[in-house]
Amino acid sequence: MNRANLRIDIGRLMNRLDRLAQVGAIEGGGNARLALTDQDKDGRDLVIGWMKALGLTVTVDAIGNVFARRKGRKDLPPLMTGSHIDTVRTGGRYDGNYGVLAGLEVVEVLNQAGIETERPITVAFFTNEEGARFHPDMMGSLAYVGGMPLEEALAATDRDGKSVGEELHRIGYAGPEPVAKPSLHRFVELHIEQGPVLDREGVTIGAVDTLQGISWTEFTIKGTSNHAGTTPMRLRHDAGYVAAELTTFVRRLANEIGGDQVGTVGSVKLFPDLINVIPNKAVVTVDVRNTDEARLKEAERRVATFAEETAKAEGCTVEAKRLARFEPVIFDARMADLIERTAKGLGFSVRRMTSGAGHDAQMMQRVAPTAMIFVPSVDGISHNVREFTSPKDLEAGANVLLQVMLDLAG
Amino acid sequence: MNRANLRIDIGRLMNRLDRLAQVGAIEGGGNARLALTDQDKDGRDLVIGWMKALGLTVTVDAIGNVFARRKGRKDLPPLMTGSHIDTVRTGGRYDGNYGVLAGLEVVEVLNQAGIETERPITVAFFTNEEGARFHPDMMGSLAYVGGMPLEEALAATDRDGKSVGEELHRIGYAGPEPVAKPSLHRFVELHIEQGPVLDREGVTIGAVDTLQGISWTEFTIKGTSNHAGTTPMRLRHDAGYVAAELTTFVRRLANEIGGDQVGTVGSVKLFPDLINVIPNKAVVTVDVRNTDEARLKEAERRVATFAEETAKAEGCTVEAKRLARFEPVIFDARMADLIERTAKGLGFSVRRMTSGAGHDAQMMQRVAPTAMIFVPSVDGISHNVREFTSPKDLEAGANVLLQVMLDLAG
Repeated sequence: MNRANLRIDIGRLMNRLDRLAQVGAIEGGGNARLALTDQDKDGRDLVIGWMKALGLTVTVDAIGNVFARRKGRKDLPPLMTGSHIDTVRTGGRYDGNYGVLAGLEVVEVLNQAGIETERPITVAFFTNEEGARFHPDMMGSLAYVGGMPLEEALAATDRDGKSVGEELHRIGYAGPEPVAKPSLHRFVELHIEQGPVLDREGVTIGAVDTLQGISWTEFTIKGTSNHAGTTPMRLRHDAGYVAAELTTFVRRLANEIGGDQVGTVGSVKLFPDLINVIPNKAVVTVDVRNTDEARLKEAERRVATFAEETAKAEGCTVEAKRLARFEPVIFDARMADLIERTAKGLGFSVRRMTSGAGHDAQMMQRVAPTAMIFVPSVDGISHNVREFTSPKDLEAGANVLLQVMLDLAG
Repeated sequence: MNRANLRIDIGRLMNRLDRLAQVGAIEGGGNARLALTDQDKDGRDLVIGWMKALGLTVTVDAIGNVFARRKGRKDLPPLMTGSHIDTVRTGGRYDGNYGVLAGLEVVEVLNQAGIETERPITVAFFTNEEGARFHPDMMGSLAYVGGMPLEEALAATDRDGKSVGEELHRIGYAGPEPVAKPSLHRFVELHIEQGPVLDREGVTIGAVDTLQGISWTEFTIKGTSNHAGTTPMRLRHDAGYVAAELTTFVRRLANEIGGDQVGTVGSVKLFPDLINVIPNKAVVTVDVRNTDEARLKEAERRVATFAEETAKAEGCTVEAKRLARFEPVIFDARMADLIERTAKGLGFSVRRMTSGAGHDAQMMQRVAPTAMIFVPSVDGISHNVREFTSPKDLEAGANVLLQVMLDLAG
């Protein structure tokens, strides 16, 4: 039987995507499965059920990462694929899930064709990739590659003060396996682009060879709350005003640095948050990203300086807390070449590209040659219930994954 | 006995202020008794207990306003004093409470001296003056003077969808008395300034003859939520960014109009409010105030235009909802004269002044000649647990109230 003629079954893959999307379903067709919630547990249970049904050996490590192993002819370091199944609060159904379920689809194709690869194959999903409940994002993969001590990850708390450790125990996913720096042959992650590049250019496959550096900072600005009617403008110490100036600065800065620099203020909280009281506290998050580490550092420095100076001028104080920081990542060029070549061989249009989003793959690059396969996101929309990729593109991406994995697993 | 020699007992007044401040006490010495909460109920129960102990006849109307009447020699329209006992979420212990409890202290002085006034005297407290839970503020006094239909007031809801009507019933303060346009002789309200003027000038008593007009608007800006890493700056429709531009505009506008124009953005909410998601919705409140109606209208117009234009440029939409609007108020000049004269007669420094805050008195001016007595707020701080007025100034203000009421009640 000719391995190159094997193809995935898109109906089967869509069916699993649909069924997983029913867990934590929200209005508009999206998903809310924040990490380590009941919804996340239900999603995990469902996917692990499929893994076991495919004959895979499932293990769970102490940070809740899940690994499903298919034996190889030899006991070599495995080829791994995977992604995550947690979502943001108003997430789509493809982000993360697609990569994990396409990995299972590859396994099912191999099972049906009776193919035994030389190396073992592992399909993984990692804990708390989104960082929407616990910081930092990509926590599970970061701990897995030894980039964060387990104790520190377990101690991270959500807004209600609940820790990762407690929540893992509560949902039954504090696994027995130690979180150890793994020995892997290669890692490949299939994911929707979450940006507009492929969709706008009409290209089907992205061979991702770099990934933007990410910097998340939380600024806590403190001023003086006072009556909104009786306090003359010149006597105000308005923390909310400083937060607003910072927000508009982040926009100006990103435009000024240009290139692929982006900057976002996604969360602002004012205290006491009342119409007629000058805010005495504002908590603002700043997300800046660039593929160039020097420029990213420049952006961070300028944001910090602006926050300091603007707070001072208003008679406020400011404290900065780093929530996440990842340098730009350069993936393995030969892996990206293989993806590009494979896509062309299958007749798909393909381009090399950068990822604007963070992914578990960026952590895996620390321990094994890694690259990513992207498929288009319609209008670039993601982290939104309207996130959409056509079944045709999902099929194309999964077939590229299948052939790349066959090549790498031998 | 010479009425002019009567004085209030500051120890007794301070004791009642302290005891009321223990209800809904929060860290730092302040109060949280948001309108119609359990804490508000407890505060009401306590104050009504004191009213009854002073031999006053207590009635409660359908919007929860409480009136404590002391009989006069003749059945004439009463002289009324009063204020409110609800607070903002992080309120001080003097705002509102002082005026109500000073009214009770005046009654106690009259009782002890065995004085029967010609006119009845009523000490009142009005429902939801602060507007921190239900809009608009000054709801109880507004309804009382016929400025708002009762049904509309009862239908107002808080953030959790609970209505004034439901909450009044729940805490047992949906009173049997109809809310009818009242027949009053005069209304006088004693209050802390909540601004810095008296404190900075070292003046003890303010004879308040005007009050700033107030305009509250809630802007709901809608954009598109999207991934913070992958969405190029030029393709964003960021509702949070528009909210921030609007916030900084309100500051610039107030400075530009100058005079006593003030402008505040006290509440901002972003959705979904996550670090790495571009906000698709922002809800922002704008509070602008001026003693000049024409300038206030100019400020409102410019804020609305700026919001429209900025939202449009960002590819967002904006909707404006008026939450409260009161024209500037001119109090009764002869009442203000009487306050000024009385303060001088008692040996206190005094000045005519404008109120920068809204007060129940502004509603009462619609139905009876009204003015206000102010005492200093240290550093002008109010709506803050650090709100403070010295016992000496509290005593001075209450003595002015006593003598003014004796004069007006005959």
